[in-house]
Amino acid sequence: MMKQLEEFLAAIEPPSPELFEKARERLDSMAIPRGSLGRLEECAQRIVAIAGTMEPELTKKTIVVFAADHGVVEEGVSAFPRDVTRQMVANFIRGGAGINVLARHARAQVMVVDMGVDADLEPCEGLLLKKIAHGTKNMRREPAMSREEALQGIMTGAEVAADLKAQQVTIVGTGDMGIGNTTPSSAITAVLTGQPVESVTGRGTGISDTGVTAKIQVIEEAIQLNQPDPADPLDVLAKVGGFEIAGIAGFIVGAALHRIPVVIDGFISSAAALVAVALNPRIRDYLFAAHRSVEPGHSILLQWLQLHPLLDLSLRLGEGTGAALGISVIDAGVQVLRGVLTFEEAGVRKAVR
Amino acid sequence: MMKQLEEFLAAIEPPSPELFEKARERLDSMAIPRGSLGRLEECAQRIVAIAGTMEPELTKKTIVVFAADHGVVEEGVSAFPRDVTRQMVANFIRGGAGINVLARHARAQVMVVDMGVDADLEPCEGLLLKKIAHGTKNMRREPAMSREEALQGIMTGAEVAADLKAQQVTIVGTGDMGIGNTTPSSAITAVLTGQPVESVTGRGTGISDTGVTAKIQVIEEAIQLNQPDPADPLDVLAKVGGFEIAGIAGFIVGAALHRIPVVIDGFISSAAALVAVALNPRIRDYLFAAHRSVEPGHSILLQWLQLHPLLDLSLRLGEGTGAALGISVIDAGVQVLRGVLTFEEAGVRKAVR
Repeated sequence: MMKQLEEFLAAIEPPSPELFEKARERLDSMAIPRGSLGRLEECAQRIVAIAGTMEPELTKKTIVVFAADHGVVEEGVSAFPRDVTRQMVANFIRGGAGINVLARHARAQVMVVDMGVDADLEPCEGLLLKKIAHGTKNMRREPAMSREEALQGIMTGAEVAADLKAQQVTIVGTGDMGIGNTTPSSAITAVLTGQPVESVTGRGTGISDTGVTAKIQVIEEAIQLNQPDPADPLDVLAKVGGFEIAGIAGFIVGAALHRIPVVIDGFISSAAALVAVALNPRIRDYLFAAHRSVEPGHSILLQWLQLHPLLDLSLRLGEGTGAALGISVIDAGVQVLRGVLTFEEAGVRKAVR
Repeated sequence: MMKQLEEFLAAIEPPSPELFEKARERLDSMAIPRGSLGRLEECAQRIVAIAGTMEPELTKKTIVVFAADHGVVEEGVSAFPRDVTRQMVANFIRGGAGINVLARHARAQVMVVDMGVDADLEPCEGLLLKKIAHGTKNMRREPAMSREEALQGIMTGAEVAADLKAQQVTIVGTGDMGIGNTTPSSAITAVLTGQPVESVTGRGTGISDTGVTAKIQVIEEAIQLNQPDPADPLDVLAKVGGFEIAGIAGFIVGAALHRIPVVIDGFISSAAALVAVALNPRIRDYLFAAHRSVEPGHSILLQWLQLHPLLDLSLRLGEGTGAALGISVIDAGVQVLRGVLTFEEAGVRKAVR
C-alpha cells in the first residue's frame, strides 16, 4: 500500500502554466479595467490551469465530509459528547445540517464517508462506509493509529477522489465531522510547522479558558509520549492524527493526482492539507483555501501552506461549510471567464491612458 | 420636492430589535456550536430584523445600476474615454458585462437606470430612462449640478426603490456606471469625512502615478472653487457629486424607508451611502457592505459608515459586481436560518461544558 501511495505522489503533475497565461490573456481582453475583478480572476486562471481547458465547467461539485471519532475525547477536550459525531452524520444524511444548507446554496452535492465513527452505521444513499476502526486510540496514552491504519485512511480518501473523477465531478470541497478533532489537528500543526502547541490550539466547538489550558496540556503530553517525527508526515498522522484527517489528506492527494481543484474548508481540513503537502509540495497548486477560521492554528496553517483564504466570515463550524461558500466564489470567477464579453465583442473602447 | 425628501427621511423606522433577538434565539437552538457560522448568522439576524419576519425569503433580488456621465472627465481624470459609459450601458442591456454574469450567479436580476448618460438611449427592457441632464458640469470650473438637480436625482433613486418594493423585491444591491466617477466619489468622501483628498483618491480604472497626482489636484481645486458645506450633504452632492451618485443615495434612502435590505457595492456606492447616512444616520441599519475595494477611499468610507465588509477580493470594477457577490453570502446566511435543524429536531445532544 505504501508503494501505491508513493506512485500516486510521484504521478502528480503541475497545473498547466501555458493555460494559466492563456486565461490571463482572455481576462485581459474583457471589457473591464484590467485585473478589476481581482481574486475572481485569479481563481478562474487557476481553475483553467488545473482543469486543462479554457472552458472549464464547474457543473458537478461535491463536498465530501469525512467522519470519525477520537479516543482523546475521554480527556475532556471537547465541549460536546462523543456520540454527537454519529448524531451529526445522521443529520447530514437527513439534510438538516449546516453543510446541507450551504452545499445546496453552492449547488453542490454532499457525500459523507465513515472513516472511523464509533457506531455501526446503516448503509444509505450519500454515505460511504469505509470504517477503519471505531475511532482512534487516546493519543495521550498511546499512538492514535498504527502506521498501517493511517496509510489505509489516506488510500481510502484517494479512492474517493478517483471515484468522483470517474463521475465527472469538476470541483470538490473537503469537510470533517469528529467530536474532538481540533485536538489532533492542533497536534499535527504543532509538529509539522514547529510552532508551540499553545499558539495553534483554540476553543474548538466552544470550551472555556480552563478547558483550553487542559487541552494544550493533553496535546503536549501526547506529543511527548509518542514522539512523532516531523520529517515523516505519515508518522505524525498516525501518532497524533485521526481517521477523518487521514481520509481528507488522501482525498487531497487523489484530487491532485486526478487534476480536480480542491477547496479546503477550515482548521481540520487544513491540517490534513498540511500532511498532504508535506508528502508532496506540488499538491499545493491544486488547493484553494476557502476561508480563515476563528481557530488560531488555522492562520498559521494557511501561512505555512502559502494559501490566501477567499473568505473571512468568522466561521468555525467545519463540516465543509466554508468550502461550500468558497466553491461558490470560485464558481463566480469561472462564470466571469466564460461569460464576460471582450472589448471587441461588446463594442467598448479601451483605456486611452 | 425638498419637503417630500424630508418626509421620507423622517418616516424611516429602525429594524426590529425584538426580531433581531428572536433570530438569535433560533440560531442558538440550531444543532451547531453556538455562533459557529459567524457572520452568516449576523447577516441572517439583520435580515430578519429588517424584513420584519422570522421567515424572510430572498427570492426576488435586484441589482440596480445607476449610470451617468461626468463633466470633469475633460480634465483627463479617467483611463477610459467618456463614451464608454454609453457603451457599457449597452453591454449591460445585452447581458455581457461583469454585473450580468455575477447577478446570474447570485440569482439576481439587473436593472439599469439612466440618470445622466451623455447620449439619447433607446427605451428597452431592463433600462429605466430617468435622465436629468447629459452628464454633470466640470466641477473644476463650476458646480457639477444645481441643488435642484441633485435633489431630483435623489428623489428618482427613492422612486426606483418604491417601485421595487411594489414588485415584492426582498433585497437590493447598488451598482454604478460612469466614466470618471471615482473623482466625484473621492471629492464627496474628502468633504464629508474631513480626510485629505490625497488619502481618499486612487487609480480608478487604472491611471498612472502622474495621473493620480493630477486627479488629486483637480479634486482639490474643485473643492476650493465650489466650497461645498460639509454640514449640508445635498450641497456636497450637488457641487462635487454626480447624477448616478445622487440616484444611488436616493435609492438607499428609499430602500430604508421601505424596509428593503440594501447591499452596498464598492467605492462609488459607498460615497452615495455616505450622503444618505449623512441625511439620516438611521439608514445605516439597512446597509450591508459587500466588499472592500482596492480604492483607498473605500476603507475610509467603510470605517466612517461603521460597516464591516463581507468580502475582500481585491475588486475594483463597480457595476454592482461586489454587491452581487455580497447578496449571495447574505442569502447563504438566510438559508442557514431557515434550513438548519435545531438540536431537538435533529436528535443531537447539546454541549456538556
